[in-house]
Amino acid sequence: MQVEARRSASNRDMAAAFPRYRQAVLGIRNYWYAAALSREVRDRPYKVRLLGEDIVLQRSGGTLHGLRDRCAHRGIPLSLGSSEYPGTISCRYHGFTYELSSGELVGVLSDRPDSRICGKPNVRVKTYPVEERAGIVWVYVGDEPPPPVEADIPPELLADDALVIARRRSQLGGNWRLAAEAGIDEGHARFLHRTSLWATFRAFPAWTQVRAQRSDDGWLSRVVEHIQWDDDHPRLGKWPKKAAWYRRRGFGAARLVGIRLPGIVRVNFAGWTSYEIYVPVDEDQRLEFLVALKSTRSRSSRLLFRMRYALLIHWFFYGGFHAQDNEMVQMMSIPPEALYGPDRSITVWRKMVQDDVRGVPVPMPSAGGGTSSPETT
Amino acid sequence: MQVEARRSASNRDMAAAFPRYRQAVLGIRNYWYAAALSREVRDRPYKVRLLGEDIVLQRSGGTLHGLRDRCAHRGIPLSLGSSEYPGTISCRYHGFTYELSSGELVGVLSDRPDSRICGKPNVRVKTYPVEERAGIVWVYVGDEPPPPVEADIPPELLADDALVIARRRSQLGGNWRLAAEAGIDEGHARFLHRTSLWATFRAFPAWTQVRAQRSDDGWLSRVVEHIQWDDDHPRLGKWPKKAAWYRRRGFGAARLVGIRLPGIVRVNFAGWTSYEIYVPVDEDQRLEFLVALKSTRSRSSRLLFRMRYALLIHWFFYGGFHAQDNEMVQMMSIPPEALYGPDRSITVWRKMVQDDVRGVPVPMPSAGGGTSSPETT
Amino acid sequence: MQVEARRSASNRDMAAAFPRYRQAVLGIRNYWYAAALSREVRDRPYKVRLLGEDIVLQRSGGTLHGLRDRCAHRGIPLSLGSSEYPGTISCRYHGFTYELSSGELVGVLSDRPDSRICGKPNVRVKTYPVEERAGIVWVYVGDEPPPPVEADIPPELLADDALVIARRRSQLGGNWRLAAEAGIDEGHARFLHRTSLWATFRAFPAWTQVRAQRSDDGWLSRVVEHIQWDDDHPRLGKWPKKAAWYRRRGFGAARLVGIRLPGIVRVNFAGWTSYEIYVPVDEDQRLEFLVALKSTRSRSSRLLFRMRYALLIHWFFYGGFHAQDNEMVQMMSIPPEALYGPDRSITVWRKMVQDDVRGVPVPMPSAGGGTSSPETT
Repeated sequence: MQVEARRSASNRDMAAAFPRYRQAVLGIRNYWYAAALSREVRDRPYKVRLLGEDIVLQRSGGTLHGLRDRCAHRGIPLSLGSSEYPGTISCRYHGFTYELSSGELVGVLSDRPDSRICGKPNVRVKTYPVEERAGIVWVYVGDEPPPPVEADIPPELLADDALVIARRRSQLGGNWRLAAEAGIDEGHARFLHRTSLWATFRAFPAWTQVRAQRSDDGWLSRVVEHIQWDDDHPRLGKWPKKAAWYRRRGFGAARLVGIRLPGIVRVNFAGWTSYEIYVPVDEDQRLEFLVALKSTRSRSSRLLFRMRYALLIHWFFYGGFHAQDNEMVQMMSIPPEALYGPDRSITVWRKMVQDDVRGVPVPMPSAGGGTSSPETT
Repeated sequence: MQVEARRSASNRDMAAAFPRYRQAVLGIRNYWYAAALSREVRDRPYKVRLLGEDIVLQRSGGTLHGLRDRCAHRGIPLSLGSSEYPGTISCRYHGFTYELSSGELVGVLSDRPDSRICGKPNVRVKTYPVEERAGIVWVYVGDEPPPPVEADIPPELLADDALVIARRRSQLGGNWRLAAEAGIDEGHARFLHRTSLWATFRAFPAWTQVRAQRSDDGWLSRVVEHIQWDDDHPRLGKWPKKAAWYRRRGFGAARLVGIRLPGIVRVNFAGWTSYEIYVPVDEDQRLEFLVALKSTRSRSSRLLFRMRYALLIHWFFYGGFHAQDNEMVQMMSIPPEALYGPDRSITVWRKMVQDDVRGVPVPMPSAGGGTSSPETT
Repeated sequence: MQVEARRSASNRDMAAAFPRYRQAVLGIRNYWYAAALSREVRDRPYKVRLLGEDIVLQRSGGTLHGLRDRCAHRGIPLSLGSSEYPGTISCRYHGFTYELSSGELVGVLSDRPDSRICGKPNVRVKTYPVEERAGIVWVYVGDEPPPPVEADIPPELLADDALVIARRRSQLGGNWRLAAEAGIDEGHARFLHRTSLWATFRAFPAWTQVRAQRSDDGWLSRVVEHIQWDDDHPRLGKWPKKAAWYRRRGFGAARLVGIRLPGIVRVNFAGWTSYEIYVPVDEDQRLEFLVALKSTRSRSSRLLFRMRYALLIHWFFYGGFHAQDNEMVQMMSIPPEALYGPDRSITVWRKMVQDDVRGVPVPMPSAGGGTSSPETT
């Protein structure tokens, strides 16, 4: 039931006002996407699915290649195959052998060398632009010529002083848009995450006054204008119910949250930054890359941060928060929805996808969908 | 395959002559339904699904409440939430807090106390009438004003001298109508249950002559007019194959079987009565409440019956018979069907649903279905 | 995803030129099919599904019978039932008792002997022609009068000197046509099976020149005209990469591969013959019978072959090759496909199904399908 409801959310009208966002069920094409950790892709085929497309990654002689994961002959995944000759991949079934760099069929290891099938137009396999940066393999999924990969990676991750610790989580349920919205969602942290272990060491305000702000470098940020640590609800009483004065130190400085296309959330903490990269696998599955950045050249600072990551950040921040968020993404069932004030950042993000996505505008579909009624403050 | 067949049985023409029965795939609306055992619903949310509707039950200050199990904000089940203030339930995601008695949004624990979302018409959550009787939580599912809950509970269960022992079984497959028909089905007991452990102590006749009888108090009963303990089938031989003279004592007095809306079967035994309450969860899932009633004020009789229940009735009667019945309900694949004489009680039950159900008559659907060919005696 | 793709392959246009082949999703009707090993069917009901039809097999007094596995009353599978009287089967639910030989309802063991339901036309259960040959139970599935079972069994399996060792494999995924094509597929053996354990003792050529040949006895065979043990691919290099001169002995004589309707593949080895019988269960499931034949009357030769079968053939040939083939059948995703020279035998097999199948020609369906582009040499 939840699954069905979620599917309908994927397909139908999340925001009738933003048809390009609504259509992006499988993700936004013409962007570079994090696909794997560099250390995961070795000299054998690595299978990944991005935006509904099956892709095989394969290293050969130090170069990384990406191909559509389907032999043109009879549709067997090439990722089941092997690399019999340098720079090639051979299908496991009949030995159809493709050049990794071009996708061209250069030989069939069960046929004569002058096999007539080689060179035919319908046996070339599609190739994908592939790059490695910051310990991550990036794959370009789209139909137009790709920009440099740097266009789609936050530049501080590429700086000389960057210490990047990345982690991949797969087999996550729910559409990528629900996950990205949960990433930029301002309100839930104050309630859902109040019960996390991380919250033992942190204060959570009752509410905040936030402004959404677009910056020139492509980020949509939430700027905190006022923090209210506790308050009284007329029909309920004091909230939070327990005073937490001793927890307040430092909170206001800790958080600046932003999101950029095609679905990267950044959270600034004192001394380090967290990135959450949401990658659509297909309509109802996602990858997530959790990236911690410490910008320093000092060897001792780097060592200390690695220890802090291993002991605290890995378990309490990514472990705790993200398990909670992912549970919500899987249980969410929209439309209909009834947005409230703090959801302003979600509405602005939807509009940003509508207005700013790369490539040719997608025409309005004729198939009718429902309507949502977002409340805007 | 069986599942597909069963679905088709749920959707299509079980009895073309009785369109309201045919339409009642999800159950009959505008009745009180057994939803949980009283002892199962405590001071935390209890999730239940009835007639295709997700409902959360929650006690607060001694009062039991029922709400639609869906936060109006982003569709998270309220049953994941918590009760932060008396008489309310707060959604786990953003702290949307609803008054249990009215479903009204009375505060959002991640927003300012004067949040503009409170009071909007689209954020009120539907409430369900809920009552407790005979150790069971009853929920009214319907669209018209509910009658008193006593209208839908056999009155002897509510009497002062009633000792009620109730049991809930969930995750049962098959449409509720197949289960209710199996409950009133006269013929199968004589063949299917002949192999049950219970049968070790009981005689089963070869056939009976039965009359279906409607009574003023809403019951449709099978009245036994003749019992034939054994007989000869011209093309087969003697049935039962083994004589069972020593088992016959008491049988004739033991059984009076009836059914009433919206799906309660009663079986009268010497000294106690069994009720089977069939509750639709959705098209292909059911709840079942098995209720044993002993009407006595004597403390020793009550104690004896509790022992008899624990040692015999629980295991041999409910355990054995119901496992057999539920297997049949899950394997049954109709239409088509070819009813025989003893199925007369099924046909009369279908007609009773058609004629007597509460509420506005449902118009005949235009979508055509198949036809069945019930044999009537 | 693979499953969806496979389903589409089952339904859509595998070979637009051959509509009768394309339509044979559930198999080819009006043939005898291997259904079970004789030793598997004993004196209790045996359930099998062939060409989408549920069938119950039952021995009675030495005679084997086949009935549609569905009681006419309420659709319970008769295979859950029992044989209460010789030559009959009784439904578990209400004791509807059918004559095995005719499918006629001869009594209802929960109703009076003169039950009016007996003799009605809609309660007769369909019977299936059933025969036993070569240790296998054969069932005729079709709409026209059956030919003798010998018409659909390779005659050498029925000869006096035949030692037949048969094995059944069930719960195999993928449409039967993909499996039959993998059986006759010439090219894959040289690449896929090169990595099998069996290959340790065998040589595999680089390529062969093969001719497809129809014979009068219904077999379509691949006749090897030239074997090339190794060769040079201009853009790749020498293949096979390692010399295998010591393996070559005997290979050329070992193989003659043929296929006949409705889906039996024969592979001739020196001294024995292997048969693979592909049986459609439904759109995406199959049975497979693996049959080894040794034609000899000598008791010592028979004993030696049994040992060879138990030690080598069973594990390395059937175990190894068929696990590989079945993996491919399950992963294959067509259309589209791009056939190459060695697929000539597949194309000829498709045409043979189109032209030669028994029974009334099936009209061209109006629903459009895709088009494939088979390369023919």
